[in-house]
Amino acid sequence: MKITKLTNSISLKRQLEGGNEEQLKTVRQVLLDVKQYGDEAVRKYSKMWDGISLEDFRVSQQEIDEAVETFDEQLKKDLEEAAENIRYYHAAQSREGYKRPLADGSWLAQRITPLDAVGLYVPGGSAAYPSSVLMNVIPAQVAGVKRIVITSPAGRDGKLPAAVLVAASILGVTEIYKIGGAQAIAALAYGTETIAAVDKITGPGNIFVALAKREVFGEVAIDMIAGPSEIAVLADETAYADEVAADLLSQAEHDALACAVLITTSERLAIDVAVEVERQLSELPREAIARQSIENFGQIYIADSITQAVEAVNSLAPEHLEVVCQNAEEVAEQINHAGAIFIGRFSSEPVGDYFAGTNHVLPTNSTARFASGLNVDDFIKRTSIVYYSEKTWQENAPKIARLARMEGLEGHARAVESRGWTKGDK
Amino acid sequence: MKITKLTNSISLKRQLEGGNEEQLKTVRQVLLDVKQYGDEAVRKYSKMWDGISLEDFRVSQQEIDEAVETFDEQLKKDLEEAAENIRYYHAAQSREGYKRPLADGSWLAQRITPLDAVGLYVPGGSAAYPSSVLMNVIPAQVAGVKRIVITSPAGRDGKLPAAVLVAASILGVTEIYKIGGAQAIAALAYGTETIAAVDKITGPGNIFVALAKREVFGEVAIDMIAGPSEIAVLADETAYADEVAADLLSQAEHDALACAVLITTSERLAIDVAVEVERQLSELPREAIARQSIENFGQIYIADSITQAVEAVNSLAPEHLEVVCQNAEEVAEQINHAGAIFIGRFSSEPVGDYFAGTNHVLPTNSTARFASGLNVDDFIKRTSIVYYSEKTWQENAPKIARLARMEGLEGHARAVESRGWTKGDK
Repeated sequence: MKITKLTNSISLKRQLEGGNEEQLKTVRQVLLDVKQYGDEAVRKYSKMWDGISLEDFRVSQQEIDEAVETFDEQLKKDLEEAAENIRYYHAAQSREGYKRPLADGSWLAQRITPLDAVGLYVPGGSAAYPSSVLMNVIPAQVAGVKRIVITSPAGRDGKLPAAVLVAASILGVTEIYKIGGAQAIAALAYGTETIAAVDKITGPGNIFVALAKREVFGEVAIDMIAGPSEIAVLADETAYADEVAADLLSQAEHDALACAVLITTSERLAIDVAVEVERQLSELPREAIARQSIENFGQIYIADSITQAVEAVNSLAPEHLEVVCQNAEEVAEQINHAGAIFIGRFSSEPVGDYFAGTNHVLPTNSTARFASGLNVDDFIKRTSIVYYSEKTWQENAPKIARLARMEGLEGHARAVESRGWTKGDK
Repeated sequence: MKITKLTNSISLKRQLEGGNEEQLKTVRQVLLDVKQYGDEAVRKYSKMWDGISLEDFRVSQQEIDEAVETFDEQLKKDLEEAAENIRYYHAAQSREGYKRPLADGSWLAQRITPLDAVGLYVPGGSAAYPSSVLMNVIPAQVAGVKRIVITSPAGRDGKLPAAVLVAASILGVTEIYKIGGAQAIAALAYGTETIAAVDKITGPGNIFVALAKREVFGEVAIDMIAGPSEIAVLADETAYADEVAADLLSQAEHDALACAVLITTSERLAIDVAVEVERQLSELPREAIARQSIENFGQIYIADSITQAVEAVNSLAPEHLEVVCQNAEEVAEQINHAGAIFIGRFSSEPVGDYFAGTNHVLPTNSTARFASGLNVDDFIKRTSIVYYSEKTWQENAPKIARLARMEGLEGHARAVESRGWTKGDK
C-alpha cells in the first residue's frame, strides 16, 4: 500500500460505472416488456439471461422446508442469533406518530404507517447472501410492513441457495420468487399475474438491477444505489498491524473498486500495515480482487495528530470507520460523517456485516455526509393531519387569506374565506 | 366537472413532463461550467437567462434590513405567527439516538446528527413565495442544521422580493444569494468562490431547476421532485358545495396540470359542486390555469358508500385529502395513503399551505403510498456504532467467521479471527 503524509484534502470518491447506453436500452426494453406482458416476459428474460425455464417461479413451501431440513444446524443457529441481534438493535428505531393540541379544540397530528408491501432483491451468482435477507427484511418487519417479497435469480438447477431460503424462513418470509435481473425489478415495480406490485424495492444487484431500480424510481421507492465497499481505519500506535491489515482486506476483497484507507499517527504502524497487507494478500482466496482494490484505491496516510486524522475522516465520510486508538470512544465522538463506526480492536468491521445487530446497508462514496444506513424509517411514511374547529378557523382565516393573497393565490384565500360565519352545520 | 360513478380503479397519475433532451443538455453544460469556473459561470448564466448583471450576488444585511423595515406590519405578524405554528408542529419530530447494551460491557448505538449545510431554492418569477422559506427552513432548524442558505433569482431590479427576505429574517437566515436556475443548483452542489457547497438541496423550481437537482443527486442529497398539486375531497351530504368547490379550485389554480377530485356519496352534492366550480371559476383571477386543470384532470365520483370512497382514496394516495362527512375523524383513520389529511369543513386545505403548522411540501402523483412530506428527519443522518469487548468478540468470533465463510468471504472471516486470544492489549 502507498504511504503518504496526510494533507488537508483527501477523498474516497471514485468515478463509478453508471452503466452504458447499450445496457440502459436493454433495461428499458425489459421494463416495457414486463409492464406489458407480465409473467410471459419474465419467463422469456429468465430463460434468455439466467438460462432457466420456469413455468412456476414462486418458491414452493416444500422447497423451503427441504432447504431448512437439510441445512447445517450450526449455521442455522448462527443465522438465528444474528437475526435476533439485528432485531434487538432495530427495535429501538420503531416509532409512533404524535398529536399536538391547538387552542379551541383544534389539533395537528402526524400519523406513522408502514409501507404496505416491499420487495427485496437478493443477488445470485456464485455465492449466497443470507445476510442481505436479514439486513433488509428485519427493519421492514420492525416497521410493520405486512407483505415482504424476496426475489433472487435461480441457479442452473432451477433452485435458490438453501442459505437464502433458510434466512427467509427464520424471518417467516414465504413469498419468494426465483427471478433475477431487470425483469425481477420490473415485476416488483409494475406487478405481473403472479407477483403483485410492491411500494419499495431494496437490495443490491448487478449493473442491470441497479439501472432498473433507477428507472422505476418514482413509480416505487428504492433504497440507495450502493457503491463499492469502503473502510477507513483511524489508528495510533496501540493498534496491531496484522489486525488492521486484515480488516482493510476484508473490504478490499468485496470488489476491485472497493476502497481501504488507513489514517494513523504512527509511522511504525503505517509501515507494518503495508507489509502485513502484502503478506496477507498473498494468502487470500480472493487475492486478485483484493489486490486490484488495494493497488488502485488503497492508501495509508500518516497524520500529525489525532485531531488531523479526525478531520480527514470527516472529509472522507467513509461507509465504515474503525477507531483503534487510545480513548477510542472519545475520538469516535468527534466523527461527524461515517456510515458506521467500530470502536476498539475487538470491533472488527465484519462483526457489523453479519452479526452485531447494526445494519450493513450503508451509505458509500462520501454520501454519509447526508445519508444513513438502512433503518426502520425507510419502511414507514408520515401523514400530517389538521383539524381546525370553527373557532380556530374564524380566528385565523383572515391571516391565512392575507398570506395567500401576498403570494398571488386568490383561490386559496377564497377557499379559506368560503366558510360562512353564519351558515351553521348542515 | 365530469361526474361519473365510482368504479374500483381510479388514479391521479399524470404523464408528467420530464424535460426534453435539449433542456437536459443545457443543464449539464451549466453544471459543468459552474463546477469548473465557479462564480464567473454563475454570473454569465444569470446575465444570459435572468437578464441581470450582479458583481456581488449575496444579499447584503442592508437589503434585508430595508425589506424588513418597509414591509407591511400585519403581513409580517402573520408570517411570524405562521413560523411559530410550523415550529410547534415540527418540534415534536426532533429525536435522539440511542444506545443498547449487550452482554460483557459491549454496546450498540445509533447517533443522530444534523446535516452540516443545506440550501433552499426559492422560485422567483412574478410572485414571491415566503411560505416556501418557512416550510423548508424550519424543519432544517429543528433538526439542528447550522448553515442554511437560500438562493432565489433576482428580479430585473436586481433585488429579491421583500416577502422572501422578511421570511428569512424572521427565521434568522442571513446567507441569501440572488441567483436562480440550474446555475444556482450547481453553485449549491459544487460550491464556488462565494458560495460554499451544501449537503442537501430542497425547494421547488422550474424544469431547469428540477433537471439540475436530478443531475446533482448523489453528489448532494435532494428533496423530492415535486409534481403538480393534487386535492381529493371525500364528502357526504353534510358538506357545503360552495366550500368544496372553492377548495378544489384552490389547488387547480396552482397549475394547469394540477388535479382536483371529489369523491362523494351524495349525488346532490356532486351536481351542486359541479355547478359551483363553474360559477367560481368564472370569477377567479387565475381562471385560465384553473379551468385547464379542472377540464383535464378534475373529476367528481359518486360512491356507493363511505367504505367504497375510502378505498378509492387509498388507491389514489393523494397529496392532500379533505374529509368532510359525518364522523370525519373516524373515516380519516381508515385512510392509509395521503400526504396530508384535513378533517371537517373548517380545515380548508390552504390552512395547511400557510399557517396551521404542518408542512406543505408533500408527496404527489400517488407517491404518498411510500413517501412523506418534508420533515425534520430529512435533515438528519444516522450513524451506527459498534463496541465489542474482548469477551464478546471471543464468544462470537467463531459464529461470525462461519457466516462469512458461508458467503465465500474468507477475508472477512480472517479479519474477525485475527484478534489473537493471547496478544493482550498493546
